[in-house]
Amino acid sequence: MTMAAKFKIGTLVVIGVGLIGGSFALALKKAKAVKRVIGVGRTRRNLAAALELGIIDEIALDAGAAVERADLVFLGVPVGQMGQTMARIAPHLTQRAVITDAGSTKQDVIEQARRFLNDHFKRFVPGHPIAGTENSGAAAAFPDLYAGKKVILTPQRETARSAVKLVRDAWLACGAEVVRLGAREQDVIFGAVSHLPHVAAYALLGTLARRKDAPKLLGYSGAGLRDTVRIAGSSPEMWRDICIANRDTLLALLDDYLDELELARAAIASNDGDALAAMFERARAARRRWLLRARA
Amino acid sequence: MTMAAKFKIGTLVVIGVGLIGGSFALALKKAKAVKRVIGVGRTRRNLAAALELGIIDEIALDAGAAVERADLVFLGVPVGQMGQTMARIAPHLTQRAVITDAGSTKQDVIEQARRFLNDHFKRFVPGHPIAGTENSGAAAAFPDLYAGKKVILTPQRETARSAVKLVRDAWLACGAEVVRLGAREQDVIFGAVSHLPHVAAYALLGTLARRKDAPKLLGYSGAGLRDTVRIAGSSPEMWRDICIANRDTLLALLDDYLDELELARAAIASNDGDALAAMFERARAARRRWLLRARA
Repeated sequence: MTMAAKFKIGTLVVIGVGLIGGSFALALKKAKAVKRVIGVGRTRRNLAAALELGIIDEIALDAGAAVERADLVFLGVPVGQMGQTMARIAPHLTQRAVITDAGSTKQDVIEQARRFLNDHFKRFVPGHPIAGTENSGAAAAFPDLYAGKKVILTPQRETARSAVKLVRDAWLACGAEVVRLGAREQDVIFGAVSHLPHVAAYALLGTLARRKDAPKLLGYSGAGLRDTVRIAGSSPEMWRDICIANRDTLLALLDDYLDELELARAAIASNDGDALAAMFERARAARRRWLLRARA
Repeated sequence: MTMAAKFKIGTLVVIGVGLIGGSFALALKKAKAVKRVIGVGRTRRNLAAALELGIIDEIALDAGAAVERADLVFLGVPVGQMGQTMARIAPHLTQRAVITDAGSTKQDVIEQARRFLNDHFKRFVPGHPIAGTENSGAAAAFPDLYAGKKVILTPQRETARSAVKLVRDAWLACGAEVVRLGAREQDVIFGAVSHLPHVAAYALLGTLARRKDAPKLLGYSGAGLRDTVRIAGSSPEMWRDICIANRDTLLALLDDYLDELELARAAIASNDGDALAAMFERARAARRRWLLRARA
């Protein structure tokens, strides 16, 4: 891979060595695009596992001391912890350190970065890799998580081009496709295709879980329910933060969903098979077009 | 397979040779448990495909004439067409013919069978195989669809034991596990784990499909949305019928789902991260317990 020969990060500091941050480190290591990875996190056991698994080369107990050596800092923490993490590291960042994140929401993270990274904001490249599984933690990380996946970058007016280049090259080395979007646009897009579906899936499984007969019910379920609620296995902490960070956009989308469900409810209640079939058919047709385009 | 040697159906008539009826025929053929399969359907092209694919041995244009030769009649039509299909075949059924169906709702189908099958009701064995994919039509059928899957039978007081035995043996020959349930119980269970999830998935994709920017949005979606709405690829006609056939049960479940979504909405609107995380955590914990039991 020519990328690996041309491009190398000296020291990468990953703050939050979970599925996302851990896979970023593993992908860069696989591409021989990083010399040394330092892991910072809240849970000693998770960091020990990350070290054992070769995801990181060193455990740092103090985020401040760790970032003093960083060429690239990767913020892999839930979006609700971005502000405090940035405030913690800002006094210790050097002038060469580039900072990036993997938060699902970008307007909120950018606002926090403006507030807490101070002079370093110009070397902060907001990012969002469109990859993941329903599993969490360092043990869930794997080097090919990002292969062929999109990574959204939403640099701001002030963002240094050299910083964008570094982060872009890092993601390319991970095998990802890099796409630039406006922060607001990205929040609407992922509100619709990711945040709303997570709320829908958590609530669907939550509806069943509330029932006394839940274990019996679930015992009869097939692949349909299993796939529909797979993402309800995701980290509640991470998704709580995302929902609140993207609140206004998500509430508008959630209202659209509630309206659509009410329409379906009304059609069922009035035995209006034509209206119901038309709703189902519109959804099915959208899915068919989408899958055809995805294959093209 | 000892089953194949001991048990054989003479002539099976499949009315509605789609994924479900076609796979039933293929599974019985693979087990050498049927001599001859006659296919009846609305679409000539689908029946020709079924013949070509070896799913059926003969196309019958008239359901009445076909069932005169039947040892077993399999009703693979949408539940909204059960009544008219039963009315059509009832005058032509012999005293030996056993009838079964594959409808997702059982109270409604049983009510129609009582009304339209007349004297033959005692040889009608209501059934519901818990298997399927998001694809429809004979071309989607495959012989192992039912291997290791549950099939629910809901025989009534009047149902002949010999009829239940025949249908049970047929499903066992398909590799399925046969479970008996009360019709009402089955409708609640599958309302919860199948019908509600289908409405949720159709409505979720419908919400996105209504937007002008739907193609762009969907272009950014990942595996999460794809799995969550996979079942929105299912037949709108079939699901329209199921929703209306199981109306009262489904409406109550849909109201529970709307309540749960409103709770999530309220937590997001008021930045109540604790309440939101608790809802997500309850769903995740239910999923974890369910998957553990499923593996056990």
